Formats: sequence, C-alpha cells, structure tokens
Amino acid sequence: ERTGDAEVVYGAGKTPAQIVELLRTLHETHPDHAVLATRLSEEAQEAVAAAHPSAVVDPVGRTAVLGTPPVLRGTVAVVSAGTSDTPVAAEAATTARVFGAEVDLITDVGVAGLHRVMGVRERLDAADCLVVVAGMEGALASVVGGLVGVPLVAVPTSVGYGASFGGVAALLAMLNSCAPGVSVVNIDNGFGAGVFAARVARRAAPREVKEQS
Amino acid sequence: ERTGDAEVVYGAGKTPAQIVELLRTLHETHPDHAVLATRLSEEAQEAVAAAHPSAVVDPVGRTAVLGTPPVLRGTVAVVSAGTSDTPVAAEAATTARVFGAEVDLITDVGVAGLHRVMGVRERLDAADCLVVVAGMEGALASVVGGLVGVPLVAVPTSVGYGASFGGVAALLAMLNSCAPGVSVVNIDNGFGAGVFAARVARRAAPREVKEQS
Amino acid sequence: ERTGDAEVVYGAGKTPAQIVELLRTLHETHPDHAVLATRLSEEAQEAVAAAHPSAVVDPVGRTAVLGTPPVLRGTVAVVSAGTSDTPVAAEAATTARVFGAEVDLITDVGVAGLHRVMGVRERLDAADCLVVVAGMEGALASVVGGLVGVPLVAVPTSVGYGASFGGVAALLAMLNSCAPGVSVVNIDNGFGAGVFAARVARRAAPREVKEQS
Amino acid sequence: ERTGDAEVVYGAGKTPAQIVELLRTLHETHPDHAVLATRLSEEAQEAVAAAHPSAVVDPVGRTAVLGTPPVLRGTVAVVSAGTSDTPVAAEAATTARVFGAEVDLITDVGVAGLHRVMGVRERLDAADCLVVVAGMEGALASVVGGLVGVPLVAVPTSVGYGASFGGVAALLAMLNSCAPGVSVVNIDNGFGAGVFAARVARRAAPREVKEQS
Amino acid sequence: ERTGDAEVVYGAGKTPAQIVELLRTLHETHPDHAVLATRLSEEAQEAVAAAHPSAVVDPVGRTAVLGTPPVLRGTVAVVSAGTSDTPVAAEAATTARVFGAEVDLITDVGVAGLHRVMGVRERLDAADCLVVVAGMEGALASVVGGLVGVPLVAVPTSVGYGASFGGVAALLAMLNSCAPGVSVVNIDNGFGAGVFAARVARRAAPREVKEQS
Amino acid sequence: ERTGDAEVVYGAGKTPAQIVELLRTLHETHPDHAVLATRLSEEAQEAVAAAHPSAVVDPVGRTAVLGTPPVLRGTVAVVSAGTSDTPVAAEAATTARVFGAEVDLITDVGVAGLHRVMGVRERLDAADCLVVVAGMEGALASVVGGLVGVPLVAVPTSVGYGASFGGVAALLAMLNSCAPGVSVVNIDNGFGAGVFAARVARRAAPREVKEQS
Amino acid sequence: ERTGDAEVVYGAGKTPAQIVELLRTLHETHPDHAVLATRLSEEAQEAVAAAHPSAVVDPVGRTAVLGTPPVLRGTVAVVSAGTSDTPVAAEAATTARVFGAEVDLITDVGVAGLHRVMGVRERLDAADCLVVVAGMEGALASVVGGLVGVPLVAVPTSVGYGASFGGVAALLAMLNSCAPGVSVVNIDNGFGAGVFAARVARRAAPREVKEQS
Amino acid sequence: ERTGDAEVVYGAGKTPAQIVELLRTLHETHPDHAVLATRLSEEAQEAVAAAHPSAVVDPVGRTAVLGTPPVLRGTVAVVSAGTSDTPVAAEAATTARVFGAEVDLITDVGVAGLHRVMGVRERLDAADCLVVVAGMEGALASVVGGLVGVPLVAVPTSVGYGASFGGVAALLAMLNSCAPGVSVVNIDNGFGAGVFAARVARRAAPREVKEQS
Ligand SMILES: Nc1ncnc2c1ncn2[C@@H]1O[C@H](COP(=O)(O)O)[C@@H](O)[C@H]1O
Ligand SMILES: Nc1ncnc2c1ncn2[C@@H]1O[C@H](COP(=O)(O)O)[C@@H](O)[C@H]1O
Ligand SMILES: Nc1ncnc2c1ncn2[C@@H]1O[C@H](COP(=O)(O)O)[C@@H](O)[C@H]1O
Ligand SMILES: Nc1ncnc2c1ncn2[C@@H]1O[C@H](COP(=O)(O)O)[C@@H](O)[C@H]1O
Ligand SMILES: [Mg+2]
Ligand SMILES: [Mg+2]
Ligand SMILES: [Mg+2]
Ligand SMILES: [Mg+2]
Ligand SMILES: [Mg+2]
Ligand SMILES: [Mg+2]
Ligand SMILES: [Mg+2]
Ligand SMILES: [Mg+2]
Repeated sequence: ERTGDAEVVYGAGKTPAQIVELLRTLHETHPDHAVLATRLSEEAQEAVAAAHPSAVVDPVGRTAVLGTPPVLRGTVAVVSAGTSDTPVAAEAATTARVFGAEVDLITDVGVAGLHRVMGVRERLDAADCLVVVAGMEGALASVVGGLVGVPLVAVPTSVGYGASFGGVAALLAMLNSCAPGVSVVNIDNGFGAGVFAARVARRAAPREVKEQS
Repeated sequence: ERTGDAEVVYGAGKTPAQIVELLRTLHETHPDHAVLATRLSEEAQEAVAAAHPSAVVDPVGRTAVLGTPPVLRGTVAVVSAGTSDTPVAAEAATTARVFGAEVDLITDVGVAGLHRVMGVRERLDAADCLVVVAGMEGALASVVGGLVGVPLVAVPTSVGYGASFGGVAALLAMLNSCAPGVSVVNIDNGFGAGVFAARVARRAAPREVKEQS
Repeated sequence: ERTGDAEVVYGAGKTPAQIVELLRTLHETHPDHAVLATRLSEEAQEAVAAAHPSAVVDPVGRTAVLGTPPVLRGTVAVVSAGTSDTPVAAEAATTARVFGAEVDLITDVGVAGLHRVMGVRERLDAADCLVVVAGMEGALASVVGGLVGVPLVAVPTSVGYGASFGGVAALLAMLNSCAPGVSVVNIDNGFGAGVFAARVARRAAPREVKEQS
Repeated sequence: ERTGDAEVVYGAGKTPAQIVELLRTLHETHPDHAVLATRLSEEAQEAVAAAHPSAVVDPVGRTAVLGTPPVLRGTVAVVSAGTSDTPVAAEAATTARVFGAEVDLITDVGVAGLHRVMGVRERLDAADCLVVVAGMEGALASVVGGLVGVPLVAVPTSVGYGASFGGVAALLAMLNSCAPGVSVVNIDNGFGAGVFAARVARRAAPREVKEQS
Repeated sequence: ERTGDAEVVYGAGKTPAQIVELLRTLHETHPDHAVLATRLSEEAQEAVAAAHPSAVVDPVGRTAVLGTPPVLRGTVAVVSAGTSDTPVAAEAATTARVFGAEVDLITDVGVAGLHRVMGVRERLDAADCLVVVAGMEGALASVVGGLVGVPLVAVPTSVGYGASFGGVAALLAMLNSCAPGVSVVNIDNGFGAGVFAARVARRAAPREVKEQS
Repeated sequence: ERTGDAEVVYGAGKTPAQIVELLRTLHETHPDHAVLATRLSEEAQEAVAAAHPSAVVDPVGRTAVLGTPPVLRGTVAVVSAGTSDTPVAAEAATTARVFGAEVDLITDVGVAGLHRVMGVRERLDAADCLVVVAGMEGALASVVGGLVGVPLVAVPTSVGYGASFGGVAALLAMLNSCAPGVSVVNIDNGFGAGVFAARVARRAAPREVKEQS
Repeated sequence: ERTGDAEVVYGAGKTPAQIVELLRTLHETHPDHAVLATRLSEEAQEAVAAAHPSAVVDPVGRTAVLGTPPVLRGTVAVVSAGTSDTPVAAEAATTARVFGAEVDLITDVGVAGLHRVMGVRERLDAADCLVVVAGMEGALASVVGGLVGVPLVAVPTSVGYGASFGGVAALLAMLNSCAPGVSVVNIDNGFGAGVFAARVARRAAPREVKEQS
Repeated sequence: ERTGDAEVVYGAGKTPAQIVELLRTLHETHPDHAVLATRLSEEAQEAVAAAHPSAVVDPVGRTAVLGTPPVLRGTVAVVSAGTSDTPVAAEAATTARVFGAEVDLITDVGVAGLHRVMGVRERLDAADCLVVVAGMEGALASVVGGLVGVPLVAVPTSVGYGASFGGVAALLAMLNSCAPGVSVVNIDNGFGAGVFAARVARRAAPREVKEQS
C-alpha cells in the first residue's frame, strides 16, 4: 500500500470526549494505521493522554498520535524561523511523519540571518520535499526556494500584527514568490503541508536509484 | 543532473525584440538545455518564430521552446474543465515537459459532469503529480483531490466575472480545500505549477521501483 | 392562506427574558401560526423551555418552536457535509418545516467522498428545492448542482480558518458556481435558506400533477 | 420531461465563428430543444444573425435563441429600476423564457419612487418567482421582498461607480436583506437568475391547483 | 453664539475615574455649556451617576450629559428600524439635543414594512435634518431619501453577521444610495451624525421665515 | 416651493443622442426648472451645445445646464486642493448652483500649505455649508473641519495611485475624521455633495435672521 | 561602533518567565549594550521588575530596558495627537532612546487644533528625524510633513472603530500623503519607527557641522 | 540652505503643453533650483525635449530635469532586482540626485540569487540611506534589511499578476518585514522614496566626521 495516509481527527470545535471517542473508533477500525488528532486544546490533550496511555501527545504542535506510522520513506525537511512559528512547524512535522516520511526539522533559520540559511543548504538539498513555515512577510519561502531545486510547500502563519492581517501578508508573498517551484497551503495549515510533502517524499526514488538516473 | 530545470524568459512586459534576443543568448549559453519563453503576445510569437525557425511556438499557451528538453522522467497529469482554462493548462503542460516530465493532458473534465471526472480516475492515479486548473469556483481541485492520493497542485484561473474577482474566488476555494494534499500557486500561474509538478514527477521512483517498495 | 409564513424572533443580541416575552406575545397574537425563535444562547434555550413547556427546543440548531406549523406541502432536502456544518443545516431544516415544507435532512455528504453524494441522488431529485450547506471551499453546492436540476439554495458557513475569512471563501465559490440554477444566501443564514426553500416547495405542484405535465 | 433546460453557449471570450459553430452543433444535436447564446459582442450578434436567419437576436440582453422553447409553464416576474440595469434584466427574461417560463417584465420601478413599486404589487404577487435586478445600493430587493411572499432571486449589477466596487455594494446589500426569502446570484448574472427562476416557476402548481390547496 | 457645540468626552478606552474627572473639569471650565460623555461602559455610567448626581445618564445610548444644553433651535428627526439599531439612534438623538436641536425620534420604521415609513412622512418632512440609522443592508436611507427632500445623514450600524462585515454592507449601500442628498458617517457613529444634524438644524430658518421665502 | 431641486440627467453610459433627447423632454415638461446633465463625454458636450444653444456647457465639470435655476439662497463654499480634483469640485459647484445656492469656489488650498487654508478661514466661516473635495489621503476635510463649525460634506476623489485604491484611502480618511460634523458622499460624487449642500444652504436662515437669534 | 542597535525581546506571545530569562541571557551576553523588551503584558512587567530590579519598566509603552543605551546622538521628535495614541508614541520614544538618539516627545498635537501644531514648528524643525503617531484618519502625518522638511516616519495606530478597520484607514492615508518625504511603518509599530528614526538621527551631522555645509 | 528640495511637476494627468509650461514657469521662478518632472508620457517627454533643449530626459524613469541640482551630499543606494522594476528604481535615483544626494544604483540583485546580494554588501554598507525597489513578493527589502544597519526605504512595485493585486502583496510584505529599520512608501512611488532618502543622506555626517565619532 503506497500512499501511507493515516486516519485523522480534526480537533477544532470538538469536545475532549468526542475526540477521545473518535480516536478509539478509528484506532479499532484501522489497527494497522496510525491515527492522528490535530488542533487539540490543553483539555483535549489531557483527556487523550488519560484515555489512551500509548498515545504520543505533542503540546507544541497540539497533536496526538495513536498506533504505528508506516515504514518511513523519503525525507521532508520542515524549515521555520522564529519561536512563534514553532507550533505550525511541529504540526507539519508530526503529520509528515505519521503520513510516512522521515522529517528533518530545521528551526531558527530566519531571513534576517542569511548565513544560518546558507549553513543548512546541504540538509535542504538532501530532502525530497521542503515545508517552509513563516509568518510576517513570509520571505523565507523565497530565500529557500532560491537556494535549492527541491519541491517546496510554503505555509504562511498568522504570526504578526497590524497589516499582516492574520497571515494574509505572508500568504500573498508566498503566492507571488519569484522562486519557481513554490506552492502554498492555507494560513497555519501545517497539517495540509505535511500530508502533501509526505506524499511527495514517499514516492521519491531512494537515493541510489536517483544517482543512477 | 537531476533537477531538469530549463532556462526561462518571462515575456510579459518585454518587447518582441528583447524576447528574441534573450532566447538567443540563453540558447547559446546553455546549448544542452531547453529554453522556454512564456506569456508571449502574438507579435512576440511571430518574432520568435521568424528569428528561431527551430522554436516550437504554442499560440494557445502563448509559449515558445528552443532546444531539447531533458530525457523525460515521471508523469504529470494536467487536468482542466472548460475551454476558457485551456491557455493556463497549456502553459502548465509545456512547462512540465520542458522541465523534464511526461505530460498527460486531460481537458473537458468539469465539476458539473462528475461521470467524466470518474472516467479518468485511472489516468489520474497513474500520474506522479497532478496539476488541476480551474476558474470560477475552483471546485475541480477538491473533487479530484477527493478521488486520488497523488500530490496535487491547483492553479486558480482568472476566468469568471463579478464576484470571481479575477480569480480570487477560485484561489480561496483551493486554499480551503477539504481534500488534504492540495497545494496552490498564484492565479493563472501555469508556469509555476508546471515547474513544481515536474520536480515532483522527476524525483518519483519509476513504476517498477514503486511496486517493489 | 398560501405562504405558510411563521412569526419569527431573531434571538441574537436579545436577553432570555426578552425572547421569552416576545414568544409569548407572538404566540398569543397568532394562535393559529407557529412561532420560531433562532440564534438562542444556552441560557435563552433554558429560559424558553422553562417558560413555554410546549416549545420544541433544538440545541443543535439553537432554535425553539411554539405552536403548530401549517400542513406541510412539498419537500425541501437539506444537504450538508461535516459535523461542523450541522448547526446551520439544523437551522435551515427547522425553519423550512415551520414555514410549511417537509424536510429530508441529508448529512455527511462531502465532496471528498463522491460516492456518498451519488448514493443520495434520487433523494435529491425527489425534492422540490435543495438547501446545500457547506463551509471551507463550499464545493458541495457545485457538485450537487451538477447532478440534478432542482432549484438549489446554497448556504456558505463560517466553518474554516485562515483564508476562509469567516465563510467568504465558501460564499464566493457558491456565487461563482459553474452549475446554473444555484442561488446563495448570507454566511450561516440557515434561516433565510429555509424560508426561501419552503416557499418554493409549498408552491410546487404535487407529484401527480407534475407527472401529467 | 420536466426541467425545461435549454442548451447554452456562453459567448464571452469566444470568437463569432466559434459561437456560430457551437450554435449549429447544439441545434443539430438537440433539434427539440431551444439553444441560447449569451454575452454576445456586436460582431457575434451579426455573425449569428447572418448564419442562422431563424435565430432571435436581442441586442439589449446580448443574447441569441435558436429553436423553440418548451411549452411555457408558470410565470417569472423580472423587475428592474433604471435603464442601466436593462441589459441584465433582458438577459434574465430571455433566459427564463428559453428555460420554459412565462415572463412578466417590469422595468422603471425604483426605490426612489415607492408609489411605482406599490402600483405593481399585484403583478408581483401573481408571479411564481421574482427576479429583482438592481445596481448601486441594491435596495430594490429589500423593498420588493418586504411587499410580497413570492420566492425572490436578486441580481446585483455592476452599475455604479466609486464605492460600488463593480457591484459589490449591491451584492452585499442583497445578501444582508432584512426581508426573508431573498436569495442572490453573482453580479450581472441575469442568466443564472433566469435559470433558477424558470425552474421554480415551472414546478409551481397551476393557479387552479393552487387555489384548491 | 451660533454653533451650539457642547464639550465632549469620548469614553471608549478610558477608565471610569478618568471619565468622571474629565467631566468635572470640562463642567467647571464651561459652566455655561453642556458636557456630553459617550461610549460609557456600565461601570463608567455608574461612576458618573454617583459622582455627578445631576448628570443625565442614558443606558441605551450609553451617554451622560452634565449641564444645560443651549436653547433648542430647529428639529432633527432620528429614524431607525429595529431594536438592534436603538443604541446608535439614542446616541445620535442625545448628541443632537446636547448640540442644540430639538429631536423627533422615530423608531420601528423598517424597509420590510413600507406603510409604516409612509405613515411618518409628514414628520420626516417637517424636520430640518434627518438622521437615518440602519444596519444589515442599510436600505432605509434610500427609502427615506426617496420620500422627502430634507438633508439626510445616514448612519450605518454594525448590526448583522456574515457578509455584513461589521457594518460595511450598510456603509457601502448608503454611499451608493440612488436618492440624492444622502451623506454618510462612520459605522455606529451616532455622535458624528448628531453633531452634523444639529448644526444643520440650528442654522435652518424658523418655519415662518421659511414660509415667506 | 422650497427644495429648489432641479431635474437631472446622469450622462454616464448614455449616447449623446439619448442625452440630447432627455434634456429636451425634461426642459419641455419642467419649463420653470433648471435641467442639469452630468458626466458628459466630449461628444455628448458637443451634441448638447449644438442641439440646445442656450445650454451652459462646462468642459471641466463635464456638465450642461438648461433653463434658469431658482433664485439663489444661502451659500455653499466648495473647497479643493489640487488641479486634479478640479473636475469634481466643478461638478459640485454647478450642481449646488442649479439646486439653488450661491457658490464660493475656493481651489488650490492644500494640506501641505496650511497658511493658504488659514487665509480663507473667513470665507469658510461665512458659508452655510462646506463641500471639501480631496483625493490621495483626503486630509483636507479634517483640517477644514477642525477650523470652522459649519456643516461639512466631504467628497473623496479617485485621484492618486497604488494604495489610494481609486479613492478608497481618501474615503476611509474622511469617514474617520477626528473633526466632528463631517459627513461623506461616494468617491467622485460632486453631484451628490452639491445637492446635499444646496439643500442645507437654502434652508439656512438669512444672515440678519441669524444674527438676531 | 556606529549603529547603536540594542538587543531586543519581542514580548507578544511569550510567557513572563520566558521574557525574564531572555532578558537575563541577552544582558549577560551583551553587557555593553542596552536590552529592550516590548509588548509586555502587566504580568510580564511585574515579573521583569521583580527579577531585574535595575530594569526601567514603562507601563504606558509596555516596555522594559536593561543596561545602558549608547551615548545619545542626534534628536528624534515623536509627535502624537490624542491620549489613545500615547502607548505607541511611548514605544517609539523608548526605542529611539535605547537605539541611541535623544527624544523630544510632543503629545496633544492634533489636526483639529492647527495652532498647537504650528506652535511646535521649531521643535519639529530642530529634530533630525520625526516620528508621527496617529490613528483614525492619520491626517497628522500630512499636516506635519507639509510644515517641515525633516525626514518623517509615520506610524498609523489601531485607534478608531468601524471603517478605521483596525488602523487601515490611517495606514492608507499615510501611504498616500501629499507631503513628500513621508515613509510609513506597520500599524502600531512604534518599535520599528523608533529603530528607523534613531538610525537616521545618529548618522546626522551634529548641528555645527551642519551649519558649515 | 540645507534641505536641497527641488521644484516638482507631477506629470500624470497633465497634457504635454501644460507640463512644458509648468517647467518653464518653475525654472524661471527658481533659477537656482533644479526642476523635476515625473510620470511623463512619451509625448510629454518629446515635448519637453523640444521646448527645453537643456532638459535631461530619462525615458526609463519617465522623468525630465531642468536646471542644476545642489552640490551633492551623502549617498543613496538604490537597489532593485528585475528589469521590470527598473522604471521605479530610475525614478527614485533621479529624484534623489535632483534633491541633492549622490546615487549608487545597484540593479539585478534578486532574492533568488543571494550571492549577488552578498556581493554588494559593502556598497550597501557605505550608503547613508537605502532605497530597495521590489515587486511580486517584495522579499528583497527583508533580505537587504537583514544584512546592513543603514536606514532603508522600501518601494513596492506593481510588477506581478494575480494575487499580487497591483503591488499590494509587496506592500504588505514590506510593512511586515522582520528586519527592523525598514520603512515603506506607496506602490511605485520612486519619487517619494527618492525625496525621503535624499533628505536622510544630505543630513548625514560626512565620512570623516562619522569615523571620529
Ligand atoms: N490541522 C488541520 N487543518 C486542516 N484540515 C485538517 C486538519 N487536521 C485534519 N484535517 C482534515 O480534517 C479531516 C477530518 O475532519 P473530521 O471528520 O471533522 O474529523 C481529515 O481527513 C483532514 O482532511
Ligand atoms: N451569462 C452567463 N453567465 C454565467 N454563466 C453562463 C452564462 N451563459 C452561459 N453560462 C454557462 O456557461 C455554460 C456554457 O459554457 P461554454 O461551454 O463555455 O459555452 C452553460 O452551461 C452555462 O452554465
Ligand atoms: N461616539 C463618538 N464617536 C466618534 N467620536 C466621538 C464620539 N464621542 C466623542 N467623539 C470625539 O471625541 C472627542 C473627544 O475625545 P477625547 O479627548 O479622547 O475624549 C470629541 O471632541 C469628539 O470629536
Ligand atoms: N511620481 C510622483 N509620485 C507621487 N507624487 C509626486 C510624484 N511626482 C511629483 N509628486 C508630487 O506632486 C507635487 C506636484 O504636483 P502638481 O502640482 O500637480 O504638479 C509635488 O510637490 C510632489 O509632492
Ligand atoms: Mg517569519
Ligand atoms: Mg472552472
Ligand atoms: Mg464543507
Ligand atoms: Mg438600482
Ligand atoms: Mg436595518
Ligand atoms: Mg488631495
Ligand atoms: Mg489621530
Ligand atoms: Mg521583485
């Protein structure tokens, strides 16, 4: 089975009890799949941890994972700049892993410090798909996209104030990136970027195959 | 050399003479690469055809290609609905080919005729990356994204009037798609989608490798 | 008397006491009509239940009904996709019933699962008017509108985040639907759609009359 | 066959030759249907008139009709205020007729002259569906919707300047109408309103049936 | 002294103590003027009532007045439709009175009940300036402006939801009113409309002077 | 008869022949009124001048006037800054005159030269109503409104580029003016401001009456 | 060392403990620099005051400063109108000082009182860079920019309601200022303006050098 | 005299004859100043060249200069990326020179080629003020602002399509730049940036003074 897709519970607007129950049902119906829950409130995280002791709960990305992801194939590099973007980067990273890709998480790589970006160039180049998470002016996507030719999914975040309009400034910047090969998902949608990137990475040829071609 | 990237001339806002000259220079500097020119006016298309008899000029997608693309690897399926979206689909298809992927062009597949969409399901499934081109309400991306698990790049087009706001309605719909694994490029940006999809397709493992894993 | 219109209290921004009192007055003045209250907070729902034991209170659609609706004529099918859109669908369904139409409520019919949509095609076809409730990218309206020729009122919901802009993405998608015969009401306006659809359904010829023509 | 739907050619962005050819094909394939072409440029209108002498070309609504509409059933009243809104009203009226409903066209009924609106109240009341066409502030929809209980489809037009934003002011006003039972189509979309209204009118019970119920 | 302008404290974002103190200072400095405070929270209203027993506090319009307005001259009619618009109408009415005009307050006059509007036509006609307060689609301004030739200041309110965008729909409708002689102030700005209307009314010639000319 | 209202032809979107004809009809029906035509193209201006030799055509404000305005009463001061705003100021001035008020036209009074504004303070103070015309950032309305207590109607113009968004920047600035007593009309709507201001000015008490009160 | 740049902690979205810790680390690593923290909640201010007794905490501008700013060079004048804009003005002033410029703080200078603006003209003229802070219609930037030829950075604030759209009205006004030499920063971004102005002021030639050239 | 300000004619919306005449008048009145004309159409450029043989006309920046600029003081570096942004960069450069600063023009420095940006770092550092011109996603401002501590004025250009919204994407990106010390002018406003930067540069201390401090 190729896609590696997991079952998912979108936690926003659901009660902790509903989430616990949905996780249980999905886990029982798909014992061979991982089940992922996203956008969990603190209460929901506690309820899930209590009800499902084997669940891996991440308070930063606000996710919970039940069951075993598929054998990982390919690598997704998740890149972000500031501490404020960390939750979205974590959601993307966990999702990519649960959907079957290895993840190389690269934080603290901002536009205002170009040498740090350049210092990770080889890691970027080694990935099969990039997820670039950035708020405010979202320039990180263009800078990374200008450095390497790896497929790049940009995630604008709602970090910012005033004329950032809840992430719209970053979204528009990413849609208008002068670096080709940049595609974009919804504001704060680490989940969507993670699914997309894992699908790309999983179908990438393993390194040795690549080298031959 | 893996990326397969071509040299590109963005024709908008350039005179026919400038475009002809730029093509010549790039072609001479990169004799082993294909050179692609996009957004060509009718005048520019004629000038290019006259100056570069070996160029392949496409009046629908408004492109010209000089030189030989790399050996094609992987398949990009470009899907669109109506005749109005054809130019953007053609730009995406030509770009994907010039950037080194085979292209399966599937037009006339609209949301209002679901059986046609379902009739091409196997072709969609066989592709390594999908480019879905749609204007107006852009629902085609969600419908296709709900059918198959292939990475999908959606291109909103400026086709429509009134509250389509030059493609914004389709752009927003695609960014909010309930089908996971959908990413989006700028309005009418067939070029960007083509580059992105070709990069994904080229690094996809060939079929027999896939089947083994 | 043909229209079947009920008396209505719009509960938003009113105190529980004001709502209880308005219901009482309208009920006394129009003993032969049903009286509908919408957008009731939990407190208002409790106050209405306590003060009017015969009222039918729906915590999902946040409505209360006092008195007897007219004899039902014609059928409105209310269609929605996810659990998040349920409150708006319930408001539409209750309103349509109180305004005198039978209601066929069809939930859990999403764009990402086309077979479910196709499975209810006959029920859609049998209705005199459709109300399609959808958030995020609102594609469900186009998909349903492409399947059947029944008049269709689309209700965008505020379900979504980021570039859904509180329902604007779905609203624009519905206004630009490529399926003709789709009309639209305000975001989350299940009430308005219910009134409109009931009026259409009530004036529809009964089935046997239809068959003759 | 109940729906009465005609075949349609959307003329915007098509050459006169393409439109003439599409009309011919559709007319031959559906000899028993009417074929409607909309959004015809002056050149397209002339080409259609020359190639299809039996076509009825309307320079105001910019439409052409080939073949015979179905037997008309039910009545659509199309209401508009100023001369500037006339083209959209004409598109709606022609469409409703071609889709099988009788049309009562009521122009020159503006908000600034309430007595004229009130003077046509009986004609409004006698219709099975209303199409209200208005630009600028779009208040006509609310005024008509407050007078009668007939289902009402509002068409905002792009007539206006400055803060009308190409019809957005009228669109928003209509979506927020305080008169219930008002639904809305895209800016200048007389076609969509005509299809919708004809579908409602055709399924309305004939007067004598109505009176009995 | 002609203008009749009062001293004003804008209460939003000020503590009760600051407001009490500002009122005291202005009252002492301008013993011959009225002093008006607007946008008072419940706490601020209580604090003002306690500290200034002679103040007239209006919990509906959220205002307080200290001192005596000038001799009233001319009449401002303040017109509104629903209960939700009452606070803004009350702010306008109090402000107009404090700035020296008599006020005729006409509530419960909505677009959906045209006979009520027509029933107050003489009162509208007798005023020297009209303030029309309306939310949602704001059509009341056009309807009233179409009835009488009195200068009309429209106040859009933030009443509504979804595509009312916090009053923007009403604002745009009023700016685009097809009735000439309509001017507009900011959303919910009853204060500004009251000042403007009072200035117009105060400089209007008394009735007998008018009749002679 | 008090209002002084003229008959009006809105020239935008009408052919020269239609305008000539409408002027003729209105002039014949209302021989005792002035008839005003606005938004006239150069062709329309020439056609009107040829057909109605007694018409006063103004190429700056793009207006034509036929017949005699009423005896002028009260004064409207029309204030503008730059040469680009002159057409809108001229439209306002002509309209105010045709609707029966004297006009004091004050141009070349910009925010960047405060001494010029202050130099005309007495003329501003002597008017019964002010019309302030400004594009770009529209600050002139606030500056004039801060100087005098006369009722002020602000007209934003579409003069500007980039983030002026066709007059939106000036419109918003005027709606948010910190000077109370400022009301606003649509972008470039010199006509509406002229009607409004003339109505205010005509009902103003003559100077000697004012002084007595 | 010329730039005078301080180390900065952006407090929004960080816990008091995180802020205290970041301040400590930066202070230890850069003992010769000042460290500035902005956007501090009341809790964060208390925590900083308790943990760093030598810190200067400003509850108005919501800042804290640890360590000694560089020797001050050049002068920044920070100008604002109302009490509501004071927090942003204070943030700008503190930032400019910490980044090494002297600050002349001029509050209570509004557009509605031009004489107050003119009264401070010499202080404005004496500065090396101006920061003008204004909400609502933001006209103060144009008025000040029209008076003096000093480089001017405008800061729109989110003060206002309705059509101020959280500072957008002021932002647009400032971007469209007819006074040349006005540049703009993000809404409420006193910090950014302070950094910019300090950099300009620090590199300005001292007065005696200026006079010689 | 310190400011170095030139006289300016804004050519947009003026006839060639008007521009020629305005230049003549300003040149005669201010024989000791330079006179600058901007936004000149091709016709205006030819007319100016014919009428004022000593004028320096720049067809790229669409400017003309008459008379001698002041002795240049300080340096403005004007930085841009693509050929499409060249006209705005040229307008900024000419303006800065005419307003009295030396200009270092650095083109072809894009985000997608970081090494080129880094290669000019010393020239950036040597300037007294930077003008960064960029369209599309406007990331260049953040990249340059992250490299050096020189005051930076960013100019968004209208270069782009689709979701660039005529320069809005770049404008928002620049307003939200994570690099402090970035201020912004209106879209395509090379003139305003040039004035601002020249004012900053002219008042900068000469190099030797700087070194001492
Ligand atoms: N963070 C997220 N953002 C957007 N969509 C999500 C997210 N997490 C889950 N989903 C989607 O939500 C679906 C489950 O929604 P539900 O049926 O409401 O639990 C999944 O199949 C995903 O497509
Ligand atoms: N005026 C119109 N506005 C919007 N949609 C239209 C209009 N006229 C026709 N259509 C739609 O366009 C479709 C035909 O498009 P096409 O195949 O491009 O000619 C029809 O089925 C209609 O749904
Ligand atoms: N409700 C209101 N809306 C808008 N502006 C107001 C309002 N109330 C008072 N103002 C204005 O606020 C000013 C006083 O502001 P302040 O000095 O902050 O109290 C007055 O002069 C009025 O112009
Ligand atoms: N390219 C430009 N963009 C914006 N404002 C400009 C431009 N060129 C000149 N200006 C301004 O226009 C004023 C002259 O306008 P005018 O009197 O209409 O020629 C000058 O003082 C400048 O402030
Ligand atoms: Mg960032
Ligand atoms: Mg489409
Ligand atoms: Mg949905
Ligand atoms: Mg209208
Ligand atoms: Mg209302
Ligand atoms: Mg102006
Ligand atoms: Mg202010
Ligand atoms: Mg660029």
